[in-house]
Amino acid sequence: MIDEFALQCPIPLADNPTVQMGHGGGGRMTRDLVEKIFLPVFGNELLAPLHDGAILPAPGGRLAFTTDSFVVRPLFFRGGDVGTLAVNGTVNDLAMCGARPLYLSAGFLLEEGLPIKDLWRVVRSMAGAAAAVGVRIVTGDTKVVEKGHGDGVFINTSGVGVIETPLTIGPGSVRPGDAILLNGDIGRHGIAVMAEREGLTFESEISSDCAPLYAPVKTLLDAGVEVHCLRDLTRGGLTSALVEISESARLPMRVDEGSVAVREEVRGACEILGLEPFSVANEGRFVAFVPAREAERARGLLGPEAAVIGGVESAGPGPPLVRVRTELGTSRLLDLPSGEQLPRIC
Amino acid sequence: MIDEFALQCPIPLADNPTVQMGHGGGGRMTRDLVEKIFLPVFGNELLAPLHDGAILPAPGGRLAFTTDSFVVRPLFFRGGDVGTLAVNGTVNDLAMCGARPLYLSAGFLLEEGLPIKDLWRVVRSMAGAAAAVGVRIVTGDTKVVEKGHGDGVFINTSGVGVIETPLTIGPGSVRPGDAILLNGDIGRHGIAVMAEREGLTFESEISSDCAPLYAPVKTLLDAGVEVHCLRDLTRGGLTSALVEISESARLPMRVDEGSVAVREEVRGACEILGLEPFSVANEGRFVAFVPAREAERARGLLGPEAAVIGGVESAGPGPPLVRVRTELGTSRLLDLPSGEQLPRIC
Repeated sequence: MIDEFALQCPIPLADNPTVQMGHGGGGRMTRDLVEKIFLPVFGNELLAPLHDGAILPAPGGRLAFTTDSFVVRPLFFRGGDVGTLAVNGTVNDLAMCGARPLYLSAGFLLEEGLPIKDLWRVVRSMAGAAAAVGVRIVTGDTKVVEKGHGDGVFINTSGVGVIETPLTIGPGSVRPGDAILLNGDIGRHGIAVMAEREGLTFESEISSDCAPLYAPVKTLLDAGVEVHCLRDLTRGGLTSALVEISESARLPMRVDEGSVAVREEVRGACEILGLEPFSVANEGRFVAFVPAREAERARGLLGPEAAVIGGVESAGPGPPLVRVRTELGTSRLLDLPSGEQLPRIC
Repeated sequence: MIDEFALQCPIPLADNPTVQMGHGGGGRMTRDLVEKIFLPVFGNELLAPLHDGAILPAPGGRLAFTTDSFVVRPLFFRGGDVGTLAVNGTVNDLAMCGARPLYLSAGFLLEEGLPIKDLWRVVRSMAGAAAAVGVRIVTGDTKVVEKGHGDGVFINTSGVGVIETPLTIGPGSVRPGDAILLNGDIGRHGIAVMAEREGLTFESEISSDCAPLYAPVKTLLDAGVEVHCLRDLTRGGLTSALVEISESARLPMRVDEGSVAVREEVRGACEILGLEPFSVANEGRFVAFVPAREAERARGLLGPEAAVIGGVESAGPGPPLVRVRTELGTSRLLDLPSGEQLPRIC
């Protein structure tokens, strides 16, 4: 198989080059990596000065600021890689604040011995994902740790966005009676990574749902939907998102299990792996809380895969609970998993 | 010895708790860590909502945005630890843009098995360093990797600051004739970390110079000094800073070696370790480029340890070089070290 990333890599591959400790030393080798790998791929006039930080024009509005580190294993999986995750994950966290993503930082933590062509491939993925959503990588840092003290590539991306809506989007704005919308089927990202890691094959291949979420958020905001809260379903999946918002807002919720789409192959894989689809990580799924009167319009704006999956109830005497009405007509409570179902998933 | 950090740690230490994979899973254990360790220590109203990102008031000026990952080994050393480094390093990168540091993110990459009391100690150091400079940690992320795929604690901090000066501070503003100022003696940080790592003892103990640099920068700006460029001397030390600025500005420089303070014990340690003091990392030292007519006034503002160490010359026909006049009257050229003199120093 021809490795297209190896062919295009701007550092000659004759010697099968790998990351060396010196690439993190701040000397000529670091400079080389920056000039040959990062600058040509991320290139923009804000990054180009290579100063200690990027100097940005005043965006003139409230800002959103977020950070995320990505330690997914393996680095490459069906539907994405650590680079697409690193851009979309942080873009999505900004979108969940109702912000238009503007600028990203990229902090690389490389393990000595990483093939340079893998780094090149990851960097290319990041540039592609950034271009797709119109965000610029304006500042960065590279560190190298000895073989056996890292794991290929860890990437931290932090992001700055501008909030152009007058709404305050967050758990504090959730109200009793709000409808809960979900933008598509759940569980594919976690299962895709797990399948790659464990060498599992399923009857139909499962691809990560990794995707940027600013466009659907913008659609809701541009249409004037009174969005109360947004949350992407990453680690801990739908379960963590709903339980956390319920606890923050101090309001109980109900979810109709039958309205939450889970593909057959994902459901099957979850059964084999002993996982609960509600708690598996996604990278392109989010919930939106909107007033009930706006629910149908919002659902239409989010497209044919979106669904109203439940609603927010009035506070009762006890702690706020998230109750799921199962397809059998019984009911169960959602709770945060104690530990981790699937480690190193993002 | 009583371990004060262990005594104060809000997670009971009876069982000698360590970081588990589940602390990175986004479930109850993650929540516990955030609520018991991070929130009480970093606590501020911008971080408290624990949403996907922080929502910040519009600062109303150009912004500076920077990122840095910290992988220092060992985590604790004379004069600082990975936490103080992680705050001061990013605060200093903002200061070098002429920006007032406002907000930091904190991305923790923890190795399974890390004693919780070490994390607590690092987090406390970060909070102390942040308070000292008036910056707030407003958003964060925690990931855990399996034992043997990390090294205790890696921290990424990204920072946002506001540029209140009308000056454009950076390599592009350096002019022939500019004086180069240095704010104190060099080489202590790298040697302090190295000594701790290698178990070396020197006659007099060498402490890291780790310190925030916004105050001296503000002093220069408030006094109306026409600052052209600022650069802190981290990886690669004075050598990398001057060579990089010289290359970016396309202007040669001269440095008077005798004007660069190096403590006797640092000089001695460098001789033993085969290191060049000019290339050893610092964490509280920076160079400032100002017009020659302002040099003496700027030096006075930076205090008794500051010195004018050289100047910028006019561009000649060849590539820009940084020439050092030695104390013996000879001359040598500075060049970026090819690889890394001292790995894992920041």
